[in-house]
Amino acid sequence: MNGDSPVDRADLRARVTKALDVILARQRSRLDGISHELSPIADALSDFVLDSGKRLRPAFGYWGWRGAGGEDSDEIVAAVAALEWLQACALIHDDVMDSSDTRRGAPAVHRRFASLHRTESWRGNAETFGQSAAILLGDLCLIWADETYNTSGMPAEALLRGQPVYDEMRTELMAGQYLDLLEQALGGSSTERAMRVATYKSAKYTIERPLHLGAALAGAPPSLVASYSAYGLPLGEAFQLRDDVLGVFGDPSCTGKPAGDDLREGKRTVLVSLTLERANSRQTALVRRHLGDPHLSPAGIDALREVIEETGALGRTEQLISERVDRSLAALALADIDAEAREVLRELAVAATARRL
Amino acid sequence: MNGDSPVDRADLRARVTKALDVILARQRSRLDGISHELSPIADALSDFVLDSGKRLRPAFGYWGWRGAGGEDSDEIVAAVAALEWLQACALIHDDVMDSSDTRRGAPAVHRRFASLHRTESWRGNAETFGQSAAILLGDLCLIWADETYNTSGMPAEALLRGQPVYDEMRTELMAGQYLDLLEQALGGSSTERAMRVATYKSAKYTIERPLHLGAALAGAPPSLVASYSAYGLPLGEAFQLRDDVLGVFGDPSCTGKPAGDDLREGKRTVLVSLTLERANSRQTALVRRHLGDPHLSPAGIDALREVIEETGALGRTEQLISERVDRSLAALALADIDAEAREVLRELAVAATARRL
Repeated sequence: MNGDSPVDRADLRARVTKALDVILARQRSRLDGISHELSPIADALSDFVLDSGKRLRPAFGYWGWRGAGGEDSDEIVAAVAALEWLQACALIHDDVMDSSDTRRGAPAVHRRFASLHRTESWRGNAETFGQSAAILLGDLCLIWADETYNTSGMPAEALLRGQPVYDEMRTELMAGQYLDLLEQALGGSSTERAMRVATYKSAKYTIERPLHLGAALAGAPPSLVASYSAYGLPLGEAFQLRDDVLGVFGDPSCTGKPAGDDLREGKRTVLVSLTLERANSRQTALVRRHLGDPHLSPAGIDALREVIEETGALGRTEQLISERVDRSLAALALADIDAEAREVLRELAVAATARRL
Repeated sequence: MNGDSPVDRADLRARVTKALDVILARQRSRLDGISHELSPIADALSDFVLDSGKRLRPAFGYWGWRGAGGEDSDEIVAAVAALEWLQACALIHDDVMDSSDTRRGAPAVHRRFASLHRTESWRGNAETFGQSAAILLGDLCLIWADETYNTSGMPAEALLRGQPVYDEMRTELMAGQYLDLLEQALGGSSTERAMRVATYKSAKYTIERPLHLGAALAGAPPSLVASYSAYGLPLGEAFQLRDDVLGVFGDPSCTGKPAGDDLREGKRTVLVSLTLERANSRQTALVRRHLGDPHLSPAGIDALREVIEETGALGRTEQLISERVDRSLAALALADIDAEAREVLRELAVAATARRL
């Protein structure tokens, strides 16, 4: 495929998956060379990474490159595919930290290895084995992210230009994850603080930094990098706010998580902060009682949902999303970028924040 | 310092620490820019990485470079310092997986963050918070390892030559860690299997691969890479066997771990396999009863130590160590390498496997 062909979103997803598959095949053969007993690792990561994922971060990385005038090539697709391994690490470790049962409509990786332990009647605690295996699998994903980037076939000088962005985004991601932990530990209810967590663990990492990575690989000028921030940061916040809404009201068949999962986990999202800011004493008591109850019943979920709607927190969140998407699209309209990239980034903005993903 | 100056081991350690400090200062300012609430991360990693560590892997990386004719420079020291961050990741995650209390004579990172949680009277479970924080801190170490390598100032073409070795060693390390988990889960007692775990999680990763990394950075010929394997693999096995012995008989002031810690954790080491292979039924029963008991008393530790000695497993392990060190030194004597590097590698072989480290 050359630089003149139109690249639609589904096609890009398929090419990213192909690039991930190349890396996975290489790792599988490396692991097999050490021991056949390592095959559950490659199997689990194949199911986790190849079979699902919206490839949103690679898409922003790719269009960040194209927007800067970079030509389409398999090499740039391979380079941005690295972001999908990074995301796999974040999700696998996140699920261990949250003790989540489900991810992408299947058992979380730590649950999968706990099941393997039970099926094989191994010694010791199955849950502990599962958690330990998932820590190692997440580490492998982080390592393979690098290898994917470095062996993408992109010119060495382009990779060097991208490296500082890549380094910064990874540290920001882990910092955002820590702030998220801290927020739960503080039982925080400030909307400002919840928004800061959203910015680091999601907004910058999902949209702004992938765009910057594409820009850096292409050697884009600072003005374009600034335009990508003006488009990417509000969009990233809107994306996280949409994710918060889906975590409470989303359809399990779309989210890949059980209904109301964020409520059971007690996540201190902007949506929850807004609810608590607006709640009367009855509503506050109800939220305090149910939020974070791991055994929360469907009726409890419905009661919480009702409070979130009644207080106007849901409406306000939808308003925050719309404002941010508008701001993002206005910045995009002003950006000095390739016309096709502008159109696709506009579509991506809508798709990433739509009421149903 | 130029290529003609003698570089002693303590001096190299200090220079590695300085390189780590440069990276840590950069990360601290990056984290501060996000939030002052992230300062416990930089504090914990500063204590963990700057205040201790034998810098063994950077030393083998450095002398792998020098042996291949590379000149001394601050850039090569900075590049191999990356291996110390990788080791920090491995140890921090390992301590979470093993629920170890102590590392390097101080509370393990997950315990440190659990204490912080308790001191601050935060919500939720302190142990869970500590584990989650330690997962993220280990991830940061893995990320900073890359950044250390990539920003070392070494020429881009040298870094590219080293990258495949670096990628392979990281995957091998995590694979070895998984095989170690599996060995505990299988309750394995085969010496051959225990030796394979030692090879991947320790021998290759601690000695052979760092040497290969130095060789690759220097563009060394395949014959030197083979010589490094002939020296490094048996030495790495001897190093792990020594570590097994120290884990049972070592002085806590040297190991930084409580006496007999490996026995409480039930580690399936070569030393333990040899013991079980040679034990009579009384001794076998005693091992099965005490090994892996987290509340094992000092008397229980002494009883286990006695069996390990009585069966001849300790003597056999010392013999395996000596044989491997001899084989390693014989290979070193034949290697076509720089004279100073040969002398230092000889000293390192002895130091890394001596009865008291």
